[in-house]
Amino acid sequence: MVNAEIITIGDEILIGQLVDTNSAWIAKHLNSAGINVYQISSVSDNAGHILKALDEASQRADIILITGGLGPTKDDITKKTLARYFGIGKMLVHQPTLDYITDIFTKRGIAITELNRLQAEVPENATVIFNTCGTAPGMYFEQNGKIYVSMPGVPYEMEAMLPKVVELLFAKTGQSAIYHKSLMTYGIPESLLAEQIEDWEGALPIHIKLAYLPEISSGIKLRLSATGDNKDLLNQQVDEEFGKLIPRLGNAVYGYEPDSLASVIGKLLTAKKASIATAESCTGGRVSHLITLIPGSSEYFKGGIVSYSNEAKMNILEVKQTTLEQFGTVSRQTVEEMALGAKRVLNADYAIATSGIAGPGGGTFEKPIGLCWFAVASPKKVASYSQMLTSDRAGNITRAAANALNYMRLLLLED
Amino acid sequence: MVNAEIITIGDEILIGQLVDTNSAWIAKHLNSAGINVYQISSVSDNAGHILKALDEASQRADIILITGGLGPTKDDITKKTLARYFGIGKMLVHQPTLDYITDIFTKRGIAITELNRLQAEVPENATVIFNTCGTAPGMYFEQNGKIYVSMPGVPYEMEAMLPKVVELLFAKTGQSAIYHKSLMTYGIPESLLAEQIEDWEGALPIHIKLAYLPEISSGIKLRLSATGDNKDLLNQQVDEEFGKLIPRLGNAVYGYEPDSLASVIGKLLTAKKASIATAESCTGGRVSHLITLIPGSSEYFKGGIVSYSNEAKMNILEVKQTTLEQFGTVSRQTVEEMALGAKRVLNADYAIATSGIAGPGGGTFEKPIGLCWFAVASPKKVASYSQMLTSDRAGNITRAAANALNYMRLLLLED
Repeated sequence: MVNAEIITIGDEILIGQLVDTNSAWIAKHLNSAGINVYQISSVSDNAGHILKALDEASQRADIILITGGLGPTKDDITKKTLARYFGIGKMLVHQPTLDYITDIFTKRGIAITELNRLQAEVPENATVIFNTCGTAPGMYFEQNGKIYVSMPGVPYEMEAMLPKVVELLFAKTGQSAIYHKSLMTYGIPESLLAEQIEDWEGALPIHIKLAYLPEISSGIKLRLSATGDNKDLLNQQVDEEFGKLIPRLGNAVYGYEPDSLASVIGKLLTAKKASIATAESCTGGRVSHLITLIPGSSEYFKGGIVSYSNEAKMNILEVKQTTLEQFGTVSRQTVEEMALGAKRVLNADYAIATSGIAGPGGGTFEKPIGLCWFAVASPKKVASYSQMLTSDRAGNITRAAANALNYMRLLLLED
Repeated sequence: MVNAEIITIGDEILIGQLVDTNSAWIAKHLNSAGINVYQISSVSDNAGHILKALDEASQRADIILITGGLGPTKDDITKKTLARYFGIGKMLVHQPTLDYITDIFTKRGIAITELNRLQAEVPENATVIFNTCGTAPGMYFEQNGKIYVSMPGVPYEMEAMLPKVVELLFAKTGQSAIYHKSLMTYGIPESLLAEQIEDWEGALPIHIKLAYLPEISSGIKLRLSATGDNKDLLNQQVDEEFGKLIPRLGNAVYGYEPDSLASVIGKLLTAKKASIATAESCTGGRVSHLITLIPGSSEYFKGGIVSYSNEAKMNILEVKQTTLEQFGTVSRQTVEEMALGAKRVLNADYAIATSGIAGPGGGTFEKPIGLCWFAVASPKKVASYSQMLTSDRAGNITRAAANALNYMRLLLLED
């Protein structure tokens, strides 16, 4: 098996100001391509240190992936240092990158500076990997049978570039095939899920492995990874195994990666030619943010009301004052009136509503921090339930928004 | 200065299943104690690999901190491997740890197993650091003038143990101090900022270093790191340097870490005893989500309208039909009416509005993808501007929301 190493460059990692999330992202994708990550090292923005790390890594691995240090400022020295490592004196302007940078700045109405222009330069032995999300180009090098790839440290720039890098590496290394597919589930806790599917997991063929990947915002992802020679066959075998599992999990399954709760709701609404609206209190706009992250959501999303004040609940969502007085803002009655109100005033077929106490303040004995009510309304009915959330403010908001979307998904399925 | 290295052990890190958050946590605490982290390495649960990593680290650093691989199961081999590294054949039972483990299991009504008992054993050259949150003891070693500390990989167990470790290291090493402070800026592109402050950066004393840390959602963070003997003096010197810089950057400076654009708006509104509302189109709820992530935001945030349809813009925000027909939804006229409408219907003193084309669909020749209009309204006026955003849908939404918050901040400052 081919070995890779990841080197992340940046003082901010070594002083603990930044958690290195890039390494896990890269490692996951290399693994999918059948490339083993042997070691991950984080080093400082220092030429001597980077050179030493490159040297050590090239003794252990065949592929060295580097992130960080490609910005336009003085402390970004990766490009210069790589040129020095390869003994390259000459830098060349990569014209498509310079054109792209110029275009971005022109659009923004800002004059391009010498520092920006320098970003388009690469060592003459580099093959440029185009950066579609930023100004620093990625670079691919080969030397003494080893492959070196340098990528930006800004996560979304690196993430946009990585599929192209993995494709290049896969082609270069001629790996035996590996195939991954991930089933998305929401609503069954991890330990319960593990018990429920233990026998299925135990009966998996030896070349197919299972991983549990839980995340607050998307539930538990079940990833099957199959290795062998024939990718089509692996694909078929993985589908067969999931085919046995899915009927046992019922409507906890909502799709395969990259489906999200919001994208699945979008598909269900599109199929019904129906529209949706939101009324949010404790989730503060996160539910509508998740819905509108989906391209094309303007076709079915009418809009949302973030009713953070009782005034907004009454004046815009038409929640009755007597309801708020009698039952309080965090109650079944209020959240159902919010959902019905959003559906009516935004003229939608379906609506989602949330009302809860995200913390850290605002809790009482009867209505403690973490209590959250969820309601969904359809052309036929309104339904609601409550749950106690047990994380901090940001965690509670994240989970509440995911719960709300999942609740709507279940309503759309039965409707 | 004393150098430390962190080694995190675990296959789950190398396949990207787990983001290594322990390293950043440890690095931050070591830095506060004046101990420089030179490198971070993540290695597999393999004895040969761990031995090699220990050997390499001890050549570069004076202190080696290790996390992970201390559990009771077969794949946890750190303790055995450390004993082998130090050439220690004999393991001793640490009685307080054994008593503690026995106590935990007795309380849970579970019989203690041989595997649990083995967790209380440590190499005979180890000084035990008591684990108050779990069954695996921490261990402190000295050999050839180097210090080695082994901690559990479970974050909350490590975090509970770390202050004791830092105290030990601080006492052993008699460190010089290090002090960090980060200035938050928004609105000046990185390359322009670098040119603008080049002479200031060049004139920094040798013991004070600058780093640029850009992020879409928060602008560019300028971090000064000062090293020396006297922490109070360093604090004062860093403040003096920032004192020279701040007047040159004007209102691009919005605070010091951990201030965010949303938290600063919250403080400004609280000082004015004023309230705010939002009207979002392209940002789809992200602006209100960011505002409501701030604890206590319910004191000043009245609510928001996500007006994704023209219907919602007209019916709820009271944007005039003639405005939409004449100028379109993405226009100065519409976004200003949205801001004024949100202010009025949510009965707020201030309002933010956004309307744009986030992509990937929806662009036209006259109104291309990325075009975004921003408006802010105060008791006295309404103002607006437009910008071309150049990222993908998610990136455009992130930047548009940050721009909108910054625009409101600027309005609140001049008001």
